[in-house]
Amino acid sequence: MKRKIALGLALTTVLATPVLADDAALREEAKGLFEVIPMQAPMLENNNAVTRDKVDLGAMLFFDPRMSKSGLFSCQSCHNVGIGGVDGLETSVGHGWQAGPRNAPTMLNAVFNIAQFWDGRAPDLAAQAKGPVQAGVEMNNTPEQVVATLKSMDGYVSAFDAAFPGESDPITFDNFALAIEAFEATLVTPNSKFDQWLMGQDGALTDQEKNGLSLFVETGCASCHNGINFGGNGYYPFGLVEKPGADVLPEGDKGRFAVSETADDEYVFRAAPLRNIALTAPYFHSGKVWDLKQAVAIMANSQLGAELSDEQVDDITAFLTTLTGEQPEVVHPTLPVRTSATPKPAPM
Amino acid sequence: MKRKIALGLALTTVLATPVLADDAALREEAKGLFEVIPMQAPMLENNNAVTRDKVDLGAMLFFDPRMSKSGLFSCQSCHNVGIGGVDGLETSVGHGWQAGPRNAPTMLNAVFNIAQFWDGRAPDLAAQAKGPVQAGVEMNNTPEQVVATLKSMDGYVSAFDAAFPGESDPITFDNFALAIEAFEATLVTPNSKFDQWLMGQDGALTDQEKNGLSLFVETGCASCHNGINFGGNGYYPFGLVEKPGADVLPEGDKGRFAVSETADDEYVFRAAPLRNIALTAPYFHSGKVWDLKQAVAIMANSQLGAELSDEQVDDITAFLTTLTGEQPEVVHPTLPVRTSATPKPAPM
Repeated sequence: MKRKIALGLALTTVLATPVLADDAALREEAKGLFEVIPMQAPMLENNNAVTRDKVDLGAMLFFDPRMSKSGLFSCQSCHNVGIGGVDGLETSVGHGWQAGPRNAPTMLNAVFNIAQFWDGRAPDLAAQAKGPVQAGVEMNNTPEQVVATLKSMDGYVSAFDAAFPGESDPITFDNFALAIEAFEATLVTPNSKFDQWLMGQDGALTDQEKNGLSLFVETGCASCHNGINFGGNGYYPFGLVEKPGADVLPEGDKGRFAVSETADDEYVFRAAPLRNIALTAPYFHSGKVWDLKQAVAIMANSQLGAELSDEQVDDITAFLTTLTGEQPEVVHPTLPVRTSATPKPAPM
Repeated sequence: MKRKIALGLALTTVLATPVLADDAALREEAKGLFEVIPMQAPMLENNNAVTRDKVDLGAMLFFDPRMSKSGLFSCQSCHNVGIGGVDGLETSVGHGWQAGPRNAPTMLNAVFNIAQFWDGRAPDLAAQAKGPVQAGVEMNNTPEQVVATLKSMDGYVSAFDAAFPGESDPITFDNFALAIEAFEATLVTPNSKFDQWLMGQDGALTDQEKNGLSLFVETGCASCHNGINFGGNGYYPFGLVEKPGADVLPEGDKGRFAVSETADDEYVFRAAPLRNIALTAPYFHSGKVWDLKQAVAIMANSQLGAELSDEQVDDITAFLTTLTGEQPEVVHPTLPVRTSATPKPAPM
């Protein structure tokens, strides 16, 4: 039975370890809540065609530190394809060694989120891609300088021509973002143990992991963390039942309130997608929690008013590790050669 | 005819544009000075066997920012496989946004240099690999913390076991360096246009490029820039005939003098290897010169006392672009997952 979140939910203790349902029943329930990650990039809702040329260009842009003012940072700096799409820092460090305000979310499977950033302020990956490149604490660049940099290099001129055929002036900041979106759309992680199990392979999950899945649903975690990404598809207050400490939920960051300026959105965040969550410590928008078990316990308590036993936390955590999919194999692109017209990096 | 460098060489002007020798004669002369880059990693002189397991481990280490104290910098940060093995900055920026003292040299083909760093203070790539990871202005880490980080992750434990079979305690700082060396030994760039021409393909170079090669030899550039890497194999004073301005040759950096403490080594540097030089702006240890033609003119003047015409500089520069080889195709490694025992990054 799925427990719906209700405001004012009393603090309860989940006492009973649920009896493990047989695979068929549990799978039936899970199929109503979750979806399998596909092998391939999906079609994009903004009609941005994911072509080979555009993906190749997007990979170049994603890995090119010359897209930052300093020449030091690329998308890859904070969204490392080798570390589950994150940087492994509490909050990212950007231009001039400034600490950013929030933990870097993964771009893996991010194409399946309803919106991007912790507060969902970007409707899609193309809109998202325009943010960090301009943020003063991140890449600290301007659209004009990005375009000037791209136009200065023959390799980018031909790559944009190929990726946006028929356009008279293909090197634009919009197309820069569309190419990065197309590349990121390919960064999906299929064939997790959970997905294999959901597709019918009983042996893909251990009994403990199945028990964890069952607990994940029964306790109510799946009320927010559902869909293809186990989250990333709705907005909820952090601290629905009980606010966690200010170390985990800093008072100054009011989440979606900064986007909507609606009082109801104070401390509201997009439910974190839990795909590959075992790879992406530290956790929460504050990045203050390094241990996945601790994160599970905090969420159960603050969102659901549930005091889980250590064993139950262990089981849910074991289940969450089954959401780690096959990591994308990315060949590091060879980047175009700068020319005398290329703006020089300005780190200092 | 090759002109040997002699101290006190008078400032001369190279007046005549040399008559282009036929390919056979020019090739014969070039074969006496230069060598072709092989397709594969060479054997290492320190008996470090370049095995597949060791190369794979080395790639992981090379790309892992968790080897730095901050969690931000990996070898790749300053030796980008996508940008000719450099970072494209005047001098690298490291821990705490400190500017390093010298321009990052490329690791591409570096296995062929007689020693590493601008001043040759590391005898091989393994010794080199231990430097930046410990340098306070670079990765600012310690061997103990690197080893602790590696031992904390199952993925590294098994990768070191495979790379160093039979060793009872394979995770050591020495083996860390040997694995990176093995990976870097694979980063060679064969099949440059020059190499194709040297192997007998007359059409691989244009007349201008052949003329540039001829000038490169006749003017005396090849006296220092010879061998497989067109440099990287000997030490020479920067400003042999006439010191360049302090912007290009800062007074405070006395080069090899800091290594040998011998007066003769003041402002002595390893002749820069010129393979892929068209990809690795800005130039010189100071990184102050962004234009390859300007770098050629400065070197002709300061090292050889030669005033080259614009046309001659153009021809030599055209020739130098033919030293760009096939860039290595590197799949970005998937890095091991951190555990609770992994030291946390400490950027601040």
